[in-house]
Formats: sequence, C-alpha cells, structure tokens
Amino acid sequence: MKKPFDKLRSRNDTAAKALALHKKLGGKIRITPAMPVRNRADLSLVYTPGVAAVSMRVAKNPKEARVYTGKGRMVAVISDGSAVLGLGNIGALGALPVMEGKCALFKTFAGVDAIPLVLDLSTSVKAGTQAEIDFLVETILAVAPAFGGINLEDIAAPKCFEIERRIIEALDIPVMHDDQHGTAIVVLAALTNACKVVKKDMRSARIVISGAGAAGAAVAHLLHAAGARNILVLDRKGIIDSTRKAPHKKELAKFTNKKLEKGGLREALQNADVFLGVSGPKIATTEDIQVMAPRAIVFAMANPTPEIMPDEAKEGGAMIIGTGRSDFPNQINNSLAFPGVFRGALDNRVTKITMAMKLKAAKAIAALVPKPTSNKIVPDMFDKRVAKAVAQVIR
Amino acid sequence: MKKPFDKLRSRNDTAAKALALHKKLGGKIRITPAMPVRNRADLSLVYTPGVAAVSMRVAKNPKEARVYTGKGRMVAVISDGSAVLGLGNIGALGALPVMEGKCALFKTFAGVDAIPLVLDLSTSVKAGTQAEIDFLVETILAVAPAFGGINLEDIAAPKCFEIERRIIEALDIPVMHDDQHGTAIVVLAALTNACKVVKKDMRSARIVISGAGAAGAAVAHLLHAAGARNILVLDRKGIIDSTRKAPHKKELAKFTNKKLEKGGLREALQNADVFLGVSGPKIATTEDIQVMAPRAIVFAMANPTPEIMPDEAKEGGAMIIGTGRSDFPNQINNSLAFPGVFRGALDNRVTKITMAMKLKAAKAIAALVPKPTSNKIVPDMFDKRVAKAVAQVIR
Repeated sequence: MKKPFDKLRSRNDTAAKALALHKKLGGKIRITPAMPVRNRADLSLVYTPGVAAVSMRVAKNPKEARVYTGKGRMVAVISDGSAVLGLGNIGALGALPVMEGKCALFKTFAGVDAIPLVLDLSTSVKAGTQAEIDFLVETILAVAPAFGGINLEDIAAPKCFEIERRIIEALDIPVMHDDQHGTAIVVLAALTNACKVVKKDMRSARIVISGAGAAGAAVAHLLHAAGARNILVLDRKGIIDSTRKAPHKKELAKFTNKKLEKGGLREALQNADVFLGVSGPKIATTEDIQVMAPRAIVFAMANPTPEIMPDEAKEGGAMIIGTGRSDFPNQINNSLAFPGVFRGALDNRVTKITMAMKLKAAKAIAALVPKPTSNKIVPDMFDKRVAKAVAQVIR
Repeated sequence: MKKPFDKLRSRNDTAAKALALHKKLGGKIRITPAMPVRNRADLSLVYTPGVAAVSMRVAKNPKEARVYTGKGRMVAVISDGSAVLGLGNIGALGALPVMEGKCALFKTFAGVDAIPLVLDLSTSVKAGTQAEIDFLVETILAVAPAFGGINLEDIAAPKCFEIERRIIEALDIPVMHDDQHGTAIVVLAALTNACKVVKKDMRSARIVISGAGAAGAAVAHLLHAAGARNILVLDRKGIIDSTRKAPHKKELAKFTNKKLEKGGLREALQNADVFLGVSGPKIATTEDIQVMAPRAIVFAMANPTPEIMPDEAKEGGAMIIGTGRSDFPNQINNSLAFPGVFRGALDNRVTKITMAMKLKAAKAIAALVPKPTSNKIVPDMFDKRVAKAVAQVIR
C-alpha cells in the first residue's frame, strides 16, 4: 500500500497531467459531420435547397424529428455549476470540463452523442431565489427541442429536486439528474454484490448514508425501493428525522431512522454494516470505522477526495471499500450507469426513467460480476457489456 | 437550358433524395471525444479525479476557459425557427435540419466545431411579444459560457435586430446573425466582381434591394459602407422612404432612396443596374427584368425558390445572374463567409465583428476570382482558400 506522501504526489501528478492534457486538447469533444460534404451535389442535399423538404416535413410532423434529425441520438449534458464534483458552486465555466468529460464518456461507453451546456443565469436572476429555479427550468425547456434526452448534472440540492421534477413533467423525453439517479443505481449494484461478499442481507443491514443532498436522497430512495429497511441519512446537523424543515429531508424521514435515533456520524456508525459517503472530503476517520459492525462495507464516494481514504478505512477494519475514483479498486462511479441508461432510453424511445427501470439497471450491473470479491464488486467501466446490459433493461 | 418540367422534376428529386439521406443519417452531426479514453489512467485525467484541477483553474481564471476547455473552438448555431430559409416561421424543430447542416458546413469549410441549438420559447412566453424577445436574449446569454462564438440564424425581422444588438452588447465573444451579415458580405463580394464584368461603378449603380428583412437591411448597410450611393430598398408595400414606422426601415430611409421615389418593384427596376432579391420566391418576372438597364445584374437569393428563376432572368436580358442555390452557377451563399468569419474570430480572439471586418471579408472573397466572368463572380464554396482568406482579415 502506498504511503500518504506517495499518494499526495500521485494526486498532484494527476492534477498536473490533467491540466497539461486539457491544454493540449483545448476541449474534450469535437463536432464532425455525419457525412462528407464534398461537392455541390452533396451540399444541395444536406443544405439548400434539399434541406427545405426536411425542415417542412419535420415542422409538420414533429415526431419525425427523431427520424430526420439528430434528436433521436443527441443528449444534452446540462449544469449550472452550482455543485461541481465535490468542489461546490464554482459556476458555469468551472463546470464545463466535467460536462465535456461526461460527453466524452457518453460516446466512449455507449455511442451516445452528447453536448455540454453550462448555464450562467446571473445576468437575468438573483442567485438562490425561486426566480433562479424558474429561469433555469424555462431555459432548459427552451433548449430542449434538439435533444432526445437531458442529463442534468452537478446542480445543487435542494433546488435540483424541483428542477428535475418540473422538467420531467414538461417534456416527453427522458430527463435524469445523474448525481441523483446514476449514483443511486451504481451504489445499489455495488451494495448488492458487497452484501453477497460479506454475507449480509441488505434488507436488514444497518445502512448509514452521509449526505442528504442530491446523491444521498436518491440513494436512500432507491435502496428503500430495493427492500432496505434500516437506513439512516445524515446531513451536517446529524441524523435526519421528521423535525427537519426541508421537504426532501422530511420525505427521507418518512422511511429512514425508524427508531428516531439522534446523533452525528460516530453515533450513526455504531454497529453499522454499511457506510455510504456522498457528502464531502475527509469527514470520517479510522476511529469512526472502528465502531462499525464486523465485515463493514465502506463506500466513500466524494470526488475528487473521498470521505475517508481507502487505507484509513481498511485500518478501521472495513472489509469492502469503494470510492468514486478510477485510481482505486471498486470504482463506484456513475459512468457504469448513465451511458447505458440514455442509450437504452434513446433506443427504446423511453419518455420517463422510472424507479422500476433504475432497480433493473442496478440488477443488470451487479449481475455482470457473478462471483464478487472484496476487491471486485462492480464490473470494470471499460467492460463493454455494461452499457449494453443497462440499455437492455431501460424500456 | 432545362425545360420548366425538367427543373420541377429535378427539384422533387432533390427533395426526395434529401429526405432519404436525412433518414439514413439520423442527424447530420456527431459528437466525438477529442482523445481516446481507453483505460482508467485516461479516465483519471479526462474525468475524476484529474478534471477537478481543471475545473478549479477555469473557475478561478475564467479567461483560461479558452485554453483548457472547448470554449476556444466551439460555436453555437442558434435559431428560434421564426424565419427558416424562405419557409417562414416553422418553429424550432423545423429549423433543426438547417442548423445541423450549417454545423456540418462549419467543420467542412473551416474546421470550426459548431453545435445546433433550436429554441422553443412557447412554454414561457407569448409569441410576438416583447417578453418573447427578452426571454430569447436571456436564454442565449444563459447558454453562452461554453461557446467562443454565437451564430444567430433564421430569426425573423425585425426582432432579429434588437436580439443581435443586445447579445453583442452583453457578451465578450463574437456574435453574428448570419442571415444579415453573412449574406451582406457575400453579396458585396459578388457585386464587386459582377460590376467588374459589366464595367459599372458600384458607387453610382442603381441598386434595387427587394426585401427589407434581416438580409435586405444588412445588405443595404454594407453596400452603403462600401460606397454605394444609389440604393432603393423595397418591402411588400413598395419602395421604402422616411414615412415608414419600423425603426430599421426608418434607418434605411436615411441613406437610401435619396430622390424619394415611390412605387413597387416594376418602378424601382426602371433602368436599374442591379436587382438583389432577398425576399421570397417568384416575386419577379421576365418583364420586370426587361425594364432594367443594359448589362443588368440579378441576384435572386431567396431559398430554396429564388425571386426569379435564372432562365427567366436571362430571358429578360440580365447579363449576370446569381442565386443562393448550389445547383446553379454563381451561388451567392453565406457559406462563403460564415465559416471563415468565425474561424478568424476564434483564432484571433476577436470579441466583436465590426463593419470594417465585413468590408475586408467581402474584398478577400472577391479577390479570389481575379478575372471574373458572367458565370464566375464568386469562388467555389469548396475552394479551400475561401475560409482561410476570410479568416485572415477578421482581426
């Protein structure tokens, strides 16, 4: 195992290398014509005068846009930069490298054509107001026609819940806030296999979710839908119960913390079987993990810096450790889910991503590792079967 | 020369072929990663954890977005579908095939990465209101951060004037409504060479512009800036004078129609040297052309059906005939200008496209045909020198 200093250096190496690569590339995606335009004959078909017949046809029969335009293949990856990775509200431009990366992964893993859109609403509305939420929703609805799906990304809680709900209601294309549902699907898949390894039953396991933001809330909902009945969710104030005011936390209190426990992370982790970190960097210590039950499962998924580093979790006695990063084993990363979810939604003309589809997607991912071990609970992201398996159940 | 029936058949052939091609392609552009993502090492640079360093850097130094993201290379081609080709207000989806085609040409002619965005504002505002204009402007400003340039397209007059002006004022990236300025640049280039062929002086030539929309107004302004002093602009009501109420028409009356002439197209064309059609299909006849001065120049640029078909203009005595179409000689098409304009603006970090740049661009295009003839007044769109020559003067 690496020493802390080596890790730090490798981390800085990664940052320096990433900066150099991005500078060299000048953007991680390229737009290319689907066909060569070599001469005037080509031009008269893809542009004037031929394109007029296509425009008229699509204008008269909007449903045929999926046939005659890119609408059937194109996904918008949209962020307002209000909750980028674990970096917080760093704005539209700060979000752009992440959205571009996501678009690159969409094509790499599932052949989906995806476009990054980052929204700066500041010239029109005041940050943190209901007007901002309204305008964000309206802007996304306005740009929606060209797309066959919308991947919302890195939008802060709690506004992300209202935004996603309103956009889903208004549009007849699949819309998914990936920080919520992509994370939830992959966590459920990973936890299914981790429970197999440690021989515990997810339904009765004591599951502690640190973080009640986009990811935490969605993970709780999906695990509950999958049968988990002993869930605690924590935010900065501690274990959530029905006294919380925020609507999405009140909602969580309805099906979590049945024994009305109080306390912080240390209290919650007492005898816990599972610790799911979807909050922020370095909030847990070796000592915290030591109070967990034997054969503990720790998924520390904050990006880029996990809630607890894998070697510390191991020291605390965790049997299975996962992170969101590609440089440790058990990468519990949305990339296992979102490419296939949208591939399937586009191929099968799905208009809404339902809870049933998410459960099936998690099952499909887990099933690709029939004999999980402590260092292998999820398939490799470069396993070409993953997106296909997920796509197949999104219908 | 083809018989009318042949032309009609070839027209329908083009439509049928265009529909078949679009159906086969399912969209005319594709998104591809700028680099292969082959393994976890690649992933840790283009996505987490490496991308975090890039996001932080760009968030702290917004100007570096041009270096570390696609902002330095990416242009948005944006339309609300309110004036698509010559087809009118056919809406966002109807506009999509044209915007996709334009994006394909951007890459083909100038290596520019361009993304089509079509806006449907109808869920938020009422069509034809000031609120619609405001919301369109706000939406475009909101989506602007990811782009190094904005090509506005097929937005109806007169709202296009206010929309373009406000977006130019608000952003520090080049913004151009191509229906206005792309058209004007290419018309000026073509007219420069056509005047050479017919041995007339553009400054004193009687120039009749049919159409006072986006293209007509911009053509009049640019020709005036180039020295033309005998311009008449017509709309559906006839020759424009200072009694018109619309602000952009009042503006035109300030420097056109100096002799305060009245009448329709026939009256305007009396002894005219140049007829520039930027209005709509089949509004002029052989008889109209017959009243023009000897060695008349006729550019009938409505798309897809010109103001007068080339054979009819010829019959009326026109010496030089141009259209916007790729299936006739002298294609006076924006494609000669817009790719190079944005290529140059991106390369030279231009923040506004000025009148001086447009004049130089027209000159650069014209100069590529040093010995123009009646069938060759503009370079071929597939002449690779065009975009380069234009790009060089946009600085």
